[in-house]
Amino acid sequence: MSVKIIEGSITSPKGFQAAGLRAGIKPGKTNKDMALLVSTVPCALAGVFTKNLAKAAPVKWDMSVVRDHGTAQAVVVNTGIANAGTGKVGEENTRRTAEKVAAELELRPEQVLVMSTGVIGAQLPMDVIENGVTMLHQALSFEEQAGHDMAEAILTTDTHPKEIVVEYELGGKTVTMAGICKGSGMIHPNMGTMLSVITTDAMISRELIQKALSEYVEDTFNMVSVDGDTSTNDTVVVMANGLAENPLLQNEQDNSEDYASFKEALLTVMTYLAKSIAADGEGATRLLEVIVNHAKDRETAKILAKSIATSNLTKAAVYGMDANWGRILCAMGYSGAQFDPEQVDIQISSAEGTVTLAENGIAAAYDEEYATKILSPDKVQIIADVHQGDTSATAWGCDLTYDYVKINADYRS
Amino acid sequence: MSVKIIEGSITSPKGFQAAGLRAGIKPGKTNKDMALLVSTVPCALAGVFTKNLAKAAPVKWDMSVVRDHGTAQAVVVNTGIANAGTGKVGEENTRRTAEKVAAELELRPEQVLVMSTGVIGAQLPMDVIENGVTMLHQALSFEEQAGHDMAEAILTTDTHPKEIVVEYELGGKTVTMAGICKGSGMIHPNMGTMLSVITTDAMISRELIQKALSEYVEDTFNMVSVDGDTSTNDTVVVMANGLAENPLLQNEQDNSEDYASFKEALLTVMTYLAKSIAADGEGATRLLEVIVNHAKDRETAKILAKSIATSNLTKAAVYGMDANWGRILCAMGYSGAQFDPEQVDIQISSAEGTVTLAENGIAAAYDEEYATKILSPDKVQIIADVHQGDTSATAWGCDLTYDYVKINADYRS
Repeated sequence: MSVKIIEGSITSPKGFQAAGLRAGIKPGKTNKDMALLVSTVPCALAGVFTKNLAKAAPVKWDMSVVRDHGTAQAVVVNTGIANAGTGKVGEENTRRTAEKVAAELELRPEQVLVMSTGVIGAQLPMDVIENGVTMLHQALSFEEQAGHDMAEAILTTDTHPKEIVVEYELGGKTVTMAGICKGSGMIHPNMGTMLSVITTDAMISRELIQKALSEYVEDTFNMVSVDGDTSTNDTVVVMANGLAENPLLQNEQDNSEDYASFKEALLTVMTYLAKSIAADGEGATRLLEVIVNHAKDRETAKILAKSIATSNLTKAAVYGMDANWGRILCAMGYSGAQFDPEQVDIQISSAEGTVTLAENGIAAAYDEEYATKILSPDKVQIIADVHQGDTSATAWGCDLTYDYVKINADYRS
Repeated sequence: MSVKIIEGSITSPKGFQAAGLRAGIKPGKTNKDMALLVSTVPCALAGVFTKNLAKAAPVKWDMSVVRDHGTAQAVVVNTGIANAGTGKVGEENTRRTAEKVAAELELRPEQVLVMSTGVIGAQLPMDVIENGVTMLHQALSFEEQAGHDMAEAILTTDTHPKEIVVEYELGGKTVTMAGICKGSGMIHPNMGTMLSVITTDAMISRELIQKALSEYVEDTFNMVSVDGDTSTNDTVVVMANGLAENPLLQNEQDNSEDYASFKEALLTVMTYLAKSIAADGEGATRLLEVIVNHAKDRETAKILAKSIATSNLTKAAVYGMDANWGRILCAMGYSGAQFDPEQVDIQISSAEGTVTLAENGIAAAYDEEYATKILSPDKVQIIADVHQGDTSATAWGCDLTYDYVKINADYRS
């Protein structure tokens, strides 16, 4: 069982076409702002959505598609406007968007997923959207570049596209899985709109996809500086069209080894995308990976890791390359998780080396200059050992910078 | 029953002396860094302390004084070093500090409260501390200025002292109550070290003080952009020495009217100090007051108000004077509180006027330029009406600015 990362794009799995282009949702800009993904045949579908009470209209639509139909054939995405806080008009606009795509592609509207991201509270310009769908239909292509165009078109304040493609074997057949996503202000748990689409040509039941997706969302996207808080629009979907012609994976018992391979591929894709979001947090200059070891149980490890990765003071210290371990201990202390502060060891690590900052909850002897050097690369780790058990967890975040404030002080202008 | 704000300082209640001066805890600086408060007679004592598991040594000391003795006569404070994450040596240093004060003042160590704030993980320079105590003893004074010196000496990154004095009647006697506090990076819930000392010459039992203090901490300090998270050092104590000679307030039933007066005075002092901390948050340019109206119960109102006041994105928008109400609705949506997003109205208000940004969860017709003008003064309000009941709550925060990042990226340097 081995999963290999390969070149490609969201169109690499068999039977997926994509397009990404500028429809012109926000006047005066030049970015690509709409994307379309289409499978030649219907896909088994699984999804995980925001827990925010104030769900965006497209989230409500997609949730009902997943729940009521469990299959889909297309995804249309727009940026610029989130279509959240838009009431009945917003719901009608989501339906009209799906209907327009369905009309173009000769599908039923219920086979079309809709994703939106951007400003909350504004209504979609439906003439621009509908015209954009027509253009996207004309631009649809199985080429790798079309997938890259889509990955680019779904971005907002992200600085680069986030894409991964993997290949593995299922029942003697080569299966491909590809993922794209967008992040944004994920530096604080509360606001990042995260959209992710994962395609695969595996033949697998929606139930098995949903099971793996739901499990891994907790270990990947939800460990990106989040504590269960989610934006109005967060959406992850997996679409499997079966064109790899592997023997159908329908239940765990009969296909335990193949399902394990599928899960490994999915975890590889989701982990890569989650880390990409953290590294490209708004204004971020470095990726922060927080590892908590020897917690008494998994939940404790996760709470501690997320609390450290979410702490503004820890993030600001990482930006300043200041090995201020007291803030790390403090973030653990207020997390709500049970541990003994007087048994905690704290290390930092990077390509520059590793150093122990605290042992048994008090300062270790270390050189501040060396610690600053360790915090200088664009990927740094904080490792906390609580010496209470044998479970670990990893969370990802980024540093808190001037640019974060700048981006968010005038996001709408 | 009327509580009047008057001129004065922490020494205004009868029988309290204070001093504040530079002992030299951090070399190369010039700020006052130690303070001492002494009552001529023992005080009834109540306290509320951080819930952080990683409690600082002085917090553990003070908690045991409150729990085991319920009385105290002096408070010694140092800034620069928090004496948290310092293990057994830290606990010994707290005890030595109390012993030094006790020796100077001919008290028992258990009559001396110790408070520390500053960097976590460093040990106190005990020669500097002990010499500082001697100097403080020599400087002790009943003068108003001595109280101002103390209020100044407990600050860290605060930009100005936070003091209030009130006067009211108890059983025909004029009673005075005074409070000082320091805030700091309270812009995010997780790190602000908050120290507050409230003195009064009222004659009242420790049980009644503790009851009122515990109740009002929830409505004041804990509504300053906090969600139950607290630093390693957070401490509020009330010391009542009885020198106003009012009839002793010993139980609620027999003294309902007088106890109400005491509570009104305490709430006035604590509310003022809490708002002062929010307004002087690290790097802040304006005070943000968040009011949630018509919630179905008090807990719901508080969770919603705190979630808005804590949201980095909302705070950054306030800094940019951007009436981005979608972020407000989003912060309500992920708060965990139950409400209907489609029934929410959102207003902003200030000395420049009031405008409705959203009605029934969707955008109202408003002028962006006027909204920006409303967000420009140094005190602004966000008012959310959820139309579900008849309870309200208020939380306080501040905007998120470049300077917040600057201060916290190199706090230790």
